[in-house]
Amino acid sequence: MSKMALIVQKFGGTSVANIERIKHAAKLVAAERKKNNQVIVVVSAMSGVTEQLIGYAREVSDLVDPNQLAEYDSIISSGEQVTSGLLALELQSLGFKSRSFLGWQAGIKTNKAYAKSRIERIDADIFHEALAADYIPVLAGFQGIDPDNRISTMGRGGSDTSAVAVAAALKAERCDIYTDVTGVYTADPRIVPKATQLAKVSYDEIMEMASLGAKVLQIRAVEMAAKHQVKVQVLSSFTESPGSLIVSNEEIMEQRLITAVAHSKNEAKVTLKNVKNTPGVVAEIFKPLGAANINIDMIIQNISPDEKTATVTFTMKDTELAAALNALNNAVDQQVFNCDDISSAKNLAKVSVIGIGMQDHPGTAQKVFQVMAEQDVNIINITTSEIKISVLINESDIETTVKALHSAFDLDN
Amino acid sequence: MSKMALIVQKFGGTSVANIERIKHAAKLVAAERKKNNQVIVVVSAMSGVTEQLIGYAREVSDLVDPNQLAEYDSIISSGEQVTSGLLALELQSLGFKSRSFLGWQAGIKTNKAYAKSRIERIDADIFHEALAADYIPVLAGFQGIDPDNRISTMGRGGSDTSAVAVAAALKAERCDIYTDVTGVYTADPRIVPKATQLAKVSYDEIMEMASLGAKVLQIRAVEMAAKHQVKVQVLSSFTESPGSLIVSNEEIMEQRLITAVAHSKNEAKVTLKNVKNTPGVVAEIFKPLGAANINIDMIIQNISPDEKTATVTFTMKDTELAAALNALNNAVDQQVFNCDDISSAKNLAKVSVIGIGMQDHPGTAQKVFQVMAEQDVNIINITTSEIKISVLINESDIETTVKALHSAFDLDN
Repeated sequence: MSKMALIVQKFGGTSVANIERIKHAAKLVAAERKKNNQVIVVVSAMSGVTEQLIGYAREVSDLVDPNQLAEYDSIISSGEQVTSGLLALELQSLGFKSRSFLGWQAGIKTNKAYAKSRIERIDADIFHEALAADYIPVLAGFQGIDPDNRISTMGRGGSDTSAVAVAAALKAERCDIYTDVTGVYTADPRIVPKATQLAKVSYDEIMEMASLGAKVLQIRAVEMAAKHQVKVQVLSSFTESPGSLIVSNEEIMEQRLITAVAHSKNEAKVTLKNVKNTPGVVAEIFKPLGAANINIDMIIQNISPDEKTATVTFTMKDTELAAALNALNNAVDQQVFNCDDISSAKNLAKVSVIGIGMQDHPGTAQKVFQVMAEQDVNIINITTSEIKISVLINESDIETTVKALHSAFDLDN
Repeated sequence: MSKMALIVQKFGGTSVANIERIKHAAKLVAAERKKNNQVIVVVSAMSGVTEQLIGYAREVSDLVDPNQLAEYDSIISSGEQVTSGLLALELQSLGFKSRSFLGWQAGIKTNKAYAKSRIERIDADIFHEALAADYIPVLAGFQGIDPDNRISTMGRGGSDTSAVAVAAALKAERCDIYTDVTGVYTADPRIVPKATQLAKVSYDEIMEMASLGAKVLQIRAVEMAAKHQVKVQVLSSFTESPGSLIVSNEEIMEQRLITAVAHSKNEAKVTLKNVKNTPGVVAEIFKPLGAANINIDMIIQNISPDEKTATVTFTMKDTELAAALNALNNAVDQQVFNCDDISSAKNLAKVSVIGIGMQDHPGTAQKVFQVMAEQDVNIINITTSEIKISVLINESDIETTVKALHSAFDLDN
């Protein structure tokens, strides 16, 4: 008899979108159990439900202070409450022992940062007891309980984090994340028809992809998986094909220079010229942006040949540009810092090549620039990390750029 | 300065049916606070939500055993969770300190009878602390927590019971039940245009009315109010008129013989003739009906002049007649008891005159029969209690009967 493994299965909103999908999810649980594995299930809300509840909450509140956000969390956590109960009922109907656990029932202890809480501790004994009694526990994802005995939620995609945290706490063999995509691709197949699904991708790579707009997994879930070495599989509940495994760098056997070409649209940039180059001036520039809650992505600074002035460029989403300019102009008016040349641009895009292989191949950046030059694509800005090279370009150049890079780095199927 | 009173305000489904109604409910809470009273709010789910959730649950389960019903309770309790959060948010937006409490957060301890649980204890300290800190607590009604740390619900209309229980535990001055009717009437105004609203009605009377189909309040809520002498006001959140107060018999100052004429439609009856009159035979007849979960209302038994056989008649809702006949015929087939003459009738109605005054007026029943004889209405069966006389009639005779009795007992306005 083979050793019994513990598998965590997480079903996202589209995988529990209606009763028919919930019944199908139950079949996938049953199939895993028939392999003689133990299973813990984690569920999201039925797709659309959370949005509806958020809409209600916004009609009665501006949702700013912690008292408001605590109510918000109590309201929106009800979506997962419903699906966890329904899936447990369906598993019972299929003949299994099963019961739902809400965050507070499962001992998912979080901090008090409502709407974006972090898991601090999980009471693994509760799950161990349920499993020992042959129950399939169905955990309502996305939610926990804070030190004040109030419900907290973990932000968009938080059920991924719930699933990985439970898998880590119980040292599960694998955490399967069921979604509506079949796995992680070398590029967006809508733009690159020759994109292929990756059998394996590393934690580091997927983190760069997630933050670059390839929204496969909540980034905190990946961080947690990496920290606790949880093997994660992303797969579709709509097909039977195997998914993509997310593992540590060491487990990526196949040597490849680049793993994927990611892109994100709707980028905007702001450039401040002739900023006096003194210590602390950059901090003064970004203070009002932080206060206005603007999510800055790339930051590039160059100084003039005489080192007296600097040019600072940063990027953000299109939708936040107006607020950013407003915050900067107010700061200049109040003489927080001086700048007489603030310009901006919209309709930009970011394209990134990602791969742990590039750590050992210093020429990768040069190759990216060469490929883009051959395509006559103008590079507006460049940023790099150890395993990523990102370029800011005009939105109209996305398709040309992504296809050319995908092909140049031998990712075409 | 007048002494601060504690008022419990309960808002039913139609009073929190959408965001507009939730905002209006918050205004009613604010108005009570401006009278310098403390307020605890109890809410139902937005109307329609519980039905939708029940529909989902039924699609995946037959909802029979306790494990199934525990999931059912966790699922359907989410409706009140949403409204409690939304109302607390709106009260915060109006400038009050407010927070929601789910059943488990408020220490509403119940037994383990899922879907029909009873409150065993309330942790009044939790409410006292919130009130002392100047918070308006908004309790999610209908739900509590059982000894296994699981959510239980209290059956249809359970939020009324939550509200009365909290009012009892905190010795509230009054429990206001906001609904979509303006109060309790002497008869159904749709049948008797001359029906008037009662300013006061006793616990005993309202209990007879509730069980007779004048669905104003959950009957267990009234029992609890009577037991703990909680003054309950039924009123509408859609008008500004005063409601009906439900109080003890002693507080009904006005002497009246009859308080109201209630009726219920869709009654059916079954008659078993020539049943051998032996000890235990009636128990044998009703055992299969109980096993089939059939809700029996009236039971009438007569024995033959020679005392050898009996005729047993009982009534139930139309919808349960087929199941009742099926259970009885099966029992006869299996010789649980013997009966060769089982007949039934549908399209019946029950009309009842109710009033604590009749305890001191022995002629009331005779007057009922006289009025009905004058109207040529055939009485099929009769049952009575200390403060009620019920007659079973054909459904087509309802209007004539109710109007005639309403007029004969001086209830017309």
